[in-house]
Amino acid sequence: MTMSILNNEIDILVSNGVVLTMDSGNTQFKNGAVAINGENIVAVGSADEFLSCKTRRVIDAHGGIIMPGLVNTHTHASMTCFRGLADDLPLMTWLNEYIFPAESKLDYRKVYCGALLACAEMILSGTTCFCDMYLFEDAVACAAKDSEMRAVVGEVLYDFPSPNYGPLEKGFEYTKMLIDKWKNDSLITIAVEPHSPYLCAPELLKKASLLAEKHNLPIVIHVSETKSEVLRSQDQHGLTPVGHLANSGILSSNLLACHCVILTDEDISLLRHFDVKVSHNPESNMKLASGIAPIPELLREGICVGLGTDGCASNNNLDIFLEMDMAAKLHKVNTSNPTVMGANTVLKMCTIEGARALGLGNITGSIEPGKKADVIVLNTHKPHLTPMYNPDSHLVYSAKGSDVTTSIINGKPVMENGRLLTIDVKKAMEDVNRIAKELQSTF
Amino acid sequence: MTMSILNNEIDILVSNGVVLTMDSGNTQFKNGAVAINGENIVAVGSADEFLSCKTRRVIDAHGGIIMPGLVNTHTHASMTCFRGLADDLPLMTWLNEYIFPAESKLDYRKVYCGALLACAEMILSGTTCFCDMYLFEDAVACAAKDSEMRAVVGEVLYDFPSPNYGPLEKGFEYTKMLIDKWKNDSLITIAVEPHSPYLCAPELLKKASLLAEKHNLPIVIHVSETKSEVLRSQDQHGLTPVGHLANSGILSSNLLACHCVILTDEDISLLRHFDVKVSHNPESNMKLASGIAPIPELLREGICVGLGTDGCASNNNLDIFLEMDMAAKLHKVNTSNPTVMGANTVLKMCTIEGARALGLGNITGSIEPGKKADVIVLNTHKPHLTPMYNPDSHLVYSAKGSDVTTSIINGKPVMENGRLLTIDVKKAMEDVNRIAKELQSTF
Repeated sequence: MTMSILNNEIDILVSNGVVLTMDSGNTQFKNGAVAINGENIVAVGSADEFLSCKTRRVIDAHGGIIMPGLVNTHTHASMTCFRGLADDLPLMTWLNEYIFPAESKLDYRKVYCGALLACAEMILSGTTCFCDMYLFEDAVACAAKDSEMRAVVGEVLYDFPSPNYGPLEKGFEYTKMLIDKWKNDSLITIAVEPHSPYLCAPELLKKASLLAEKHNLPIVIHVSETKSEVLRSQDQHGLTPVGHLANSGILSSNLLACHCVILTDEDISLLRHFDVKVSHNPESNMKLASGIAPIPELLREGICVGLGTDGCASNNNLDIFLEMDMAAKLHKVNTSNPTVMGANTVLKMCTIEGARALGLGNITGSIEPGKKADVIVLNTHKPHLTPMYNPDSHLVYSAKGSDVTTSIINGKPVMENGRLLTIDVKKAMEDVNRIAKELQSTF
Repeated sequence: MTMSILNNEIDILVSNGVVLTMDSGNTQFKNGAVAINGENIVAVGSADEFLSCKTRRVIDAHGGIIMPGLVNTHTHASMTCFRGLADDLPLMTWLNEYIFPAESKLDYRKVYCGALLACAEMILSGTTCFCDMYLFEDAVACAAKDSEMRAVVGEVLYDFPSPNYGPLEKGFEYTKMLIDKWKNDSLITIAVEPHSPYLCAPELLKKASLLAEKHNLPIVIHVSETKSEVLRSQDQHGLTPVGHLANSGILSSNLLACHCVILTDEDISLLRHFDVKVSHNPESNMKLASGIAPIPELLREGICVGLGTDGCASNNNLDIFLEMDMAAKLHKVNTSNPTVMGANTVLKMCTIEGARALGLGNITGSIEPGKKADVIVLNTHKPHLTPMYNPDSHLVYSAKGSDVTTSIINGKPVMENGRLLTIDVKKAMEDVNRIAKELQSTF
């Protein structure tokens, strides 16, 4: 704890709960507190150390868990509009007969409404930061900003015309517009987001890489999601998608590679060598029957892995608690080893490692003085969280998004006692219900 | 709908929601209602058909989902006391260093308290009926009865002395006592429950089978949970566990075989031939790295499969919604086929097929006139359930136990607006917290 804080006034003290800092030493305080001034965490420690502080506002955790807000490293937030539209279908039927036709009907307003509903769902289930790729991405940035959520957003770029910007060169213009519009924003980071090696020619990839480098921004891309993608790449380039990206010169520590389901040993070496970050999306990969990413191997190699839900048309929710439970269990059964992906490892993937994956490791993902105050509180006085021998275990194997009661993002409470403060939830639901009716009439 | 009901008074009308009957025709009513008199469902249909009925009480579903209560076909309810005590360990370390020592400390009171907390968790997450195997099982029956839950319970039988009844012959006496005590009970069914082929000699199995047959009761047993169990059986008997059970003459349509992770084609043929019922426990099997049961194959063979959570020390919760999501996704990725285990198939496994697995197919598991009224209501006006194209999809892929607001068991409301009516939750949590402290002091 920064003792000097004792002499200052604290804006918000989140107190009286088990504090999981998720710092490098995994420090926990059994009855702890987090002090927030403005946007920043200024101190963390035992609750009794703060007793004599002048405090403008105390948020009482009532003996629950106080922890960093969760980070969702891969979403297409606006796909909430398509949640449950079609399931249990072969990938190409699902895409060609449902998702692509539905997406062709999208516009700025629909994308905004879908993203706002997604923000509501994410905040309600403990997520404070997400990374998004989609069309009309300025609408997603606006929805995140209006919700007061932290977000990394980028317009999807590919070789064919987009329903948003038209021809590819306009896609780069649009991305530059986003960079310019949102630069220095306290919540929104723009990323450069080529869709995938299979929808982007090497020139596009190279240009995206240069643009990201120039502005020191993350690049986000889908990589090796399915076996057929890998086979096609080998056919076309004589290289795996990761090999092809290496060859195109875009592997770097700023690159977030989403999915990474099908990887060779050589791919893993390349990811490690270039310090590429990985977003693991187990629920989507399972539901689409894409495969199981070799996450325990990536972790053994020291590669930074965050968790993501993917779009909720292939999930069908944005609850990181479910993703944690799934990730922990899937790799145990897949490797026949109950000791892999332990609770603390998984918890890191959706806090500090998730933040690092997005290039925000110095900003969020842990409770440490100097970081932005992205903090959530869980109510653990519930039958399914009783007794509590170990908070890490409960968070991964027993808790649900609905146990989160309070959320603070960038120092500002956005949810208290389960009530959203920044979004009119009823209107957000009505808007998307109306959009769903419009979409449904076209099938 | 039974039209004669219109002339009678209805005790409870659950109305104004999408009714999923889960009957053999998968009948759904978009704006439907369920009429309950005494313990029984007397009619189901469109809400407007009931407008002129005299109704003592209306439960308004507010446009949510009305469906049969969920069935959990395999639990060790009292293991709530050990929830999160130890995780991410090799199976034998987990059992020998944590679970067995903790279980040796159990007594009637602890088992009752653990089971009561489990009942609270299960009702809160939509389960109305569960099947349990444990020690001091009369305590579990009493906890279920006090909670007014439907349950199939049986004392575990094995070749070595039990902390409850002592030597095996007393185990049969104890089971007979249970049969006698609970016969004709409206909620509790006693089962005969030999632990497993590896802990029960053929004589025990045979005796258990005869006892069950005599009283026409279910037999519940763990079968083929791990590869090492199968190898040991082949070593010892020259047969797989299923083959050995067939040889011992205990395979029958009254037998519920829990887990069935490692099965040969011959095993599957035997299960089909004898109409054996199967309890699928994906989360526990994944967490303990036991393997993936070949459920799509069993279903193709027409074998009745229900879902179960197993004890919550290896899960770590009793929420059937999470089990559904896991089951649907796990088999898709395991078979590389996104069309297996569709939402409706999975939904059946925890309603009508789960009820059939327990021999209660005529009593519960669907909303049909003449069945006992085990009915739940979900609130779907939430961001993560918006929009709703297809209720089946939402229940499996998007909903959580915490979306259940109302539960009626055997015609009696046991939860309304998320508030338990039959259990003092605060006390139930305090009791188990105290037990956890006692247990923890012994490690």
